[in-house]
Amino acid sequence: MGGLVALEGPDGSGKSTQLCLLREVLEGRQLDVVWTREPGGTVIGEQIRTVLHDLANDAMLPITEALLYSAARAQHVAEVIRPALARGALVITDRYAASTLAYQGYGHGLDIDMLRQITVLVTGGVIPDLTIYLDLPAERGLERKLVDRSAGQGEWNRMDQQALVFHRAVRAGYLEMAQAETERWLVLDADDTMQAIHQQIMARIEPLLT
Amino acid sequence: MGGLVALEGPDGSGKSTQLCLLREVLEGRQLDVVWTREPGGTVIGEQIRTVLHDLANDAMLPITEALLYSAARAQHVAEVIRPALARGALVITDRYAASTLAYQGYGHGLDIDMLRQITVLVTGGVIPDLTIYLDLPAERGLERKLVDRSAGQGEWNRMDQQALVFHRAVRAGYLEMAQAETERWLVLDADDTMQAIHQQIMARIEPLLT
Repeated sequence: MGGLVALEGPDGSGKSTQLCLLREVLEGRQLDVVWTREPGGTVIGEQIRTVLHDLANDAMLPITEALLYSAARAQHVAEVIRPALARGALVITDRYAASTLAYQGYGHGLDIDMLRQITVLVTGGVIPDLTIYLDLPAERGLERKLVDRSAGQGEWNRMDQQALVFHRAVRAGYLEMAQAETERWLVLDADDTMQAIHQQIMARIEPLLT
Repeated sequence: MGGLVALEGPDGSGKSTQLCLLREVLEGRQLDVVWTREPGGTVIGEQIRTVLHDLANDAMLPITEALLYSAARAQHVAEVIRPALARGALVITDRYAASTLAYQGYGHGLDIDMLRQITVLVTGGVIPDLTIYLDLPAERGLERKLVDRSAGQGEWNRMDQQALVFHRAVRAGYLEMAQAETERWLVLDADDTMQAIHQQIMARIEPLLT
């Protein structure tokens, strides 16, 4: 058994819920499963995560983001993922390289080829056996704001419009990557029920357990 | 007037002393001079510097170092260097992109072309009008250790040998870069007197002040 599984999807797609359901099932069995996340998963990676998530750092450029995520990924692969795969473990990571391509590449418009080259460099070619993408229309994340607006408590502003354009581009990027490698990707409708999504995920993960 | 000047050189080359002498002279004149350093020079850059300089982070890979230095550089160019150059200031930086090429590229053996591509990406093509390299034989940095050894207080060990090979490769890298662009580089013998070095630096900086 063994392999690398990445979960991808925007905020509100139910990614955390699915990780939780998956963990409940897999922890009941006698399996070597490593649960990890990006950015982070290592001491250095968590320090980089702190820089990335610092709300005061609103001057951060997309290229800086891409390099910081990639730096954290280099440590993650070397310290966690590669050793675990070498001993035959199943590694399940909350986000991986596809996030950088989707958000900084497709979303912010950085050169995709360049980001792919950096990805090869930091992962040493370790790619997921399976990437699960929980697909959600870009509009969904802005729904709460829309409700506020209709109640006269907010305005549909330039920031909302930018966010919508950005998240549409990110989603298009994920779908393009998934279509280019259908055997390595599983795209699921995040609007399905929690249990229906969970069962589809389990069906694709089972073969990696034996 | 204006332009970008980078100071490069290993520990013990007298780089800090030269920056200090330079500052004394230039602060006496009515000039727009910006003093900065890498990694750092911005809020995000200083956070990244903390990660890079954390002694506990001895698991850090060369590629992680290269990406972190580059990430800090992206912010440095966008927030400090480019705006200063745009208003005609003279920017003097303690280290710049050549450090990444020399240490992570020539020293640690990362692909130089790849590092150059990343450099173009993060600097947007902002290259120094003048890079001053204080040249010191690699053996010099290990001299103190050698003295200890001769007094029976230390052993010439594998780490010393690795350090020597590394610093020789770094130095060779600097000299190669300097030779490829002689009009943009000034290589100075760090064994010269403090004042002799200072005068040679001033002779090359004066034209940027008028």
